[in-house]
Amino acid sequence: MWIDGLQYCNWSRGIFEQMRAGGVDAVHVTIAYHEMFRETVLQIERWNRYFEDHSDLICHAKTAADIGEAKAAGRTAIVFGAQNPSPMEDDIGLIEILHTLGLRFMQLTYNNQSLLATGCYEAEDPGLTRMGREVIAEMNRVGMVVDMSHSADRSTIDAAEHSVRPIAITHANPHVWHAARRNKAPEVIDAVVSGGGMMGFSLYPHHLAGGSDCTLDSFCGMVADMVETHGLAHFGIGSDLCQDQPDSVVEWMRVGRWTKRIDYGEGSAAAPGFPPQPDWFRSNADFPRLAEGLRAVGFDATGVAALMGGNWLDFFDKNFGPAT
Amino acid sequence: MWIDGLQYCNWSRGIFEQMRAGGVDAVHVTIAYHEMFRETVLQIERWNRYFEDHSDLICHAKTAADIGEAKAAGRTAIVFGAQNPSPMEDDIGLIEILHTLGLRFMQLTYNNQSLLATGCYEAEDPGLTRMGREVIAEMNRVGMVVDMSHSADRSTIDAAEHSVRPIAITHANPHVWHAARRNKAPEVIDAVVSGGGMMGFSLYPHHLAGGSDCTLDSFCGMVADMVETHGLAHFGIGSDLCQDQPDSVVEWMRVGRWTKRIDYGEGSAAAPGFPPQPDWFRSNADFPRLAEGLRAVGFDATGVAALMGGNWLDFFDKNFGPAT
Repeated sequence: MWIDGLQYCNWSRGIFEQMRAGGVDAVHVTIAYHEMFRETVLQIERWNRYFEDHSDLICHAKTAADIGEAKAAGRTAIVFGAQNPSPMEDDIGLIEILHTLGLRFMQLTYNNQSLLATGCYEAEDPGLTRMGREVIAEMNRVGMVVDMSHSADRSTIDAAEHSVRPIAITHANPHVWHAARRNKAPEVIDAVVSGGGMMGFSLYPHHLAGGSDCTLDSFCGMVADMVETHGLAHFGIGSDLCQDQPDSVVEWMRVGRWTKRIDYGEGSAAAPGFPPQPDWFRSNADFPRLAEGLRAVGFDATGVAALMGGNWLDFFDKNFGPAT
Repeated sequence: MWIDGLQYCNWSRGIFEQMRAGGVDAVHVTIAYHEMFRETVLQIERWNRYFEDHSDLICHAKTAADIGEAKAAGRTAIVFGAQNPSPMEDDIGLIEILHTLGLRFMQLTYNNQSLLATGCYEAEDPGLTRMGREVIAEMNRVGMVVDMSHSADRSTIDAAEHSVRPIAITHANPHVWHAARRNKAPEVIDAVVSGGGMMGFSLYPHHLAGGSDCTLDSFCGMVADMVETHGLAHFGIGSDLCQDQPDSVVEWMRVGRWTKRIDYGEGSAAAPGFPPQPDWFRSNADFPRLAEGLRAVGFDATGVAALMGGNWLDFFDKNFGPAT
């Protein structure tokens, strides 16, 4: 079972075919960055059309069991998530509504301060807000995973402590391997995984040591180091793959409607667009290379299976429904 | 299994307790008259709170199987419906979204012309619109029942003919028994039931022969006549019970936001409010009286069981999910 913990592609039949070719059994897809509730519903409507029009390749999954059925039917299961709490607006009742519609991950922040917590680009991080604590409790109740990939350190540690269920960093890498602002300090990773949480390793060049020139061996060596430190059970892939997206999309991610200026985020004025992917990971068809790379750094079949998706599947199984 | 095919009460724990006392196993509740999508979602949020706060008495049902589980657990199952297509706005993609959120009935019109068909208060009835035909096909696909209770005759017959799955008149009575504008002509009833459709008999005084003074015997005699003409399988109760509602609510039903004037609908300037219920049917606790009344006019146990809810349950079972 191979599962990708995050993608935001310019979806097409070609990409869905690559998912099948690459042996990708399930993908957590972002359906909202800065979209408010009604706009997020439009994105779900768009996915419903994909599910109708490409039912031979993909289907919607709300549970780990759905992913098992999809695999048996030769289809890639799609799990919805949001990278910002914008879809719930300022209404805690929308969490259950969005969960019913299939949302299984929600970041408490994108890069900025939200109503709930602090993003990793703010100068100050006062931690979880009053509403943030209420929202985590409601997400815990219905079974929607708290994702802190784009959040600041104190907020992330607060969230891990406040949440009664495990949380996730779906797409990031360790800061010790590559000191990007989006990569995570050891104490943040500790806080997340010690509570049973998951971290998905990112293949987005700004998160990679060496950027677009990062080698598969370096990436897989980093994975091996993390497993040695924290154990096998808490890691997977969260590729952050943005296949076929125009640069206008990375601008939308960074700027949304919160400023009228340009904010380059992880980019710069000299390099404002999507950075080129490493040549060994350009599309969904390249997932087998990750498995090869993990074997090459010494993982056995059990380790490769856990890291390529088994750990995500276990996590989904425990965290995608009401607490029992 | 006792099922009510329509209610719109001023919901409270007291009413939910009466449902249990009255032996009501499931109720199709109206969650929208003129509410647009976001407002309808707020109504679902409100119901989600009822389900949390009164989980000992009620629960949400999306399938006939859910109703069976609710009964086994001693709870009344709540099924959502809309009396107007306002919740889907002008967006066919919202039908699947609303279905996912639990909407299982949608009237194509309230009293006026809609984007889809004609309501029973319009002077002219040109029948189903272009969008109306598309929407019925989509409702057929996902398993949302076309409800024509407040529609005009030609539109209703068109809908019955165009729909590939059975449709419903959830709350109305035969026009031959009481010549109200909302009651249905023989050819309309024929069109609906001949396609496997259902009709729920209304206890709303404006639909009753003699109004608030209608007797239980007269009501049950009408039911017996309909069963004699059309067979037992196509009828149930759709009480249209509006317990504890202030008169401002009947004004909202009639006027919505489509006029700035007052439209009295089935009422009048002299009697603008909710009419008093017959003394034998004032609340959810009075359902056993309907069963007694049906026995008194000659129905055996099989007949009473079918009319009190068995027919609705069969209909829900066949029509609340994707076509097989």
